[in-house]
Amino acid sequence: MIPTKQEVEAACERVKPYVHNTPVLKSSFLNELSGAEIFFKCENFQKMGAFKMRGATNAILQACLPNGQVSDEQKKNGVVTHSSGNFAQALSLAAKNLGVKAYIVMPENAPQVKKEAVKGYGGIITESESTPIARETEAERIQKETGATFIHPSNDRNVILGNATSAAELLQTHPDLDYVFTPVGGGGLIAGTALSVKYFGTDCKTIGGEPFEVDDAFRCLESGKIEFNETTNTIADGLKTFLGDVNFPIIKELVSEIIRVEETEIISAMKLIWERMKIIVEPSSAVAFAALLREKERFKNKKVGILISGGNVDLMNLPF
Amino acid sequence: MIPTKQEVEAACERVKPYVHNTPVLKSSFLNELSGAEIFFKCENFQKMGAFKMRGATNAILQACLPNGQVSDEQKKNGVVTHSSGNFAQALSLAAKNLGVKAYIVMPENAPQVKKEAVKGYGGIITESESTPIARETEAERIQKETGATFIHPSNDRNVILGNATSAAELLQTHPDLDYVFTPVGGGGLIAGTALSVKYFGTDCKTIGGEPFEVDDAFRCLESGKIEFNETTNTIADGLKTFLGDVNFPIIKELVSEIIRVEETEIISAMKLIWERMKIIVEPSSAVAFAALLREKERFKNKKVGILISGGNVDLMNLPF
Repeated sequence: MIPTKQEVEAACERVKPYVHNTPVLKSSFLNELSGAEIFFKCENFQKMGAFKMRGATNAILQACLPNGQVSDEQKKNGVVTHSSGNFAQALSLAAKNLGVKAYIVMPENAPQVKKEAVKGYGGIITESESTPIARETEAERIQKETGATFIHPSNDRNVILGNATSAAELLQTHPDLDYVFTPVGGGGLIAGTALSVKYFGTDCKTIGGEPFEVDDAFRCLESGKIEFNETTNTIADGLKTFLGDVNFPIIKELVSEIIRVEETEIISAMKLIWERMKIIVEPSSAVAFAALLREKERFKNKKVGILISGGNVDLMNLPF
Repeated sequence: MIPTKQEVEAACERVKPYVHNTPVLKSSFLNELSGAEIFFKCENFQKMGAFKMRGATNAILQACLPNGQVSDEQKKNGVVTHSSGNFAQALSLAAKNLGVKAYIVMPENAPQVKKEAVKGYGGIITESESTPIARETEAERIQKETGATFIHPSNDRNVILGNATSAAELLQTHPDLDYVFTPVGGGGLIAGTALSVKYFGTDCKTIGGEPFEVDDAFRCLESGKIEFNETTNTIADGLKTFLGDVNFPIIKELVSEIIRVEETEIISAMKLIWERMKIIVEPSSAVAFAALLREKERFKNKKVGILISGGNVDLMNLPF
């Protein structure tokens, strides 16, 4: 069930020509503040501004490249997903790069700026009502009518394997990390990261950061089954989704713990990164750093990787 | 009069242990938009967030290290400057790193956040009225009373030589640049950059970007003498100062041209860099990129270095 080391290595080779090997940044100020030695893996510098480009690329290559190249039929049929966030843009751009059609189901109330971004990358948008069921139904309809392959943003084995390539790169240059922190939303990033930590780390643990407001993954690890959120009042808009049957088994087996953080901690961690590192990160990315800061006594003098998941923010609507 | 290649090389060796060799970033989107191949030299990632750390470090080392090490007397006497901006912080931090005292004359109406930053780096603040004459008088008084060495933020040969080290690094890894753009304020950055372009470039030209609102340097190149600004209504708060008798001769001889830009162009260039590169740059830094965009037809298919001077902005007070 758990993907093998060979599968992760194959994903690394597969996506390499299509994604950036993103830089790893350090900050002496933030090291001093936290007491840990932090290595920020900067997926905000990834193509389209988020790690999702990795999973999208790997999934399209696996769906449309059964013989090592995209067949004309698959190009025509394309891929379909439902997402209002980074995955919609990632799938659109990855598909464009590979000459494949991408159908994106977006809720009709999605911000115009996100719709424009998807269109800019060549994605074909279909609007639906904003309920999960309406989005899934619409995606199924497109799948049936066009023959497109459905790719889930986070609960897809190939997406998880693609996401794993970021921590794989991080551990390749820094194999002695004690911990790798990631934010937890739909679970696709932390599941992939945990795979790379298992296969390429040396006595390294994967830790999730999650807002108290949407702490479904934290509760999943306690109850042993998939949990949901009744409300989603968090600034970390990428983390409102819940785990799925593909990524939860990986998370259950390989993630050490999930640390929850308050909204004020997220905003303050985000501001610290902006001000001190001069890089633009999404609120969701700041959650992992906020989790480290909240429990910093436990991580003193440890080497900690933090996966900065993305940098797509609305500059007109900042929390500070 | 013009510093020699050997002097620039010596400055590079001298400051190397104390400053970051900052990264050079590229953006395929901004390349496409401009038609040029752009290499952004990111001094926003420099210590204390701006290139000024280079000039300050070199000047202190030259003032206090006549025999290769800081003498106890010089440490005690220290250095003094007047600045309300990045140079105040740079001199404070560089002095702290070298165990030297730094006296900073700041206008009494300087923003509290800037005073705090200087104090945070250990600078000893003296407040003065905000006129240039009041600031200079106060700096002279401190100089006389303490024996501190005065270091001007931009019109000082050692500061210029320190600033030159950024473009020297850029040209070391990218020796085939056709142009290097910098913003023009007090003239210390563009003078240093022009030296490195002369000595380490291959058929490379230095171009300045300057706001129309404070276009004193543009007018200097036309009139052949130092000009001033009657008003300073620009968002590029680092560029309100004027050239001096040390840097102007270098600029006059080595800078090819100065391109002026509108305030709206500065804001839009700044937003493009933030959104597309996910890095935080000051309005002053965006001026150089805005200058390239304004005249982009002329730089099509050219290799252009752009010196991102710094990233110290007030996140609570953004222009967008």
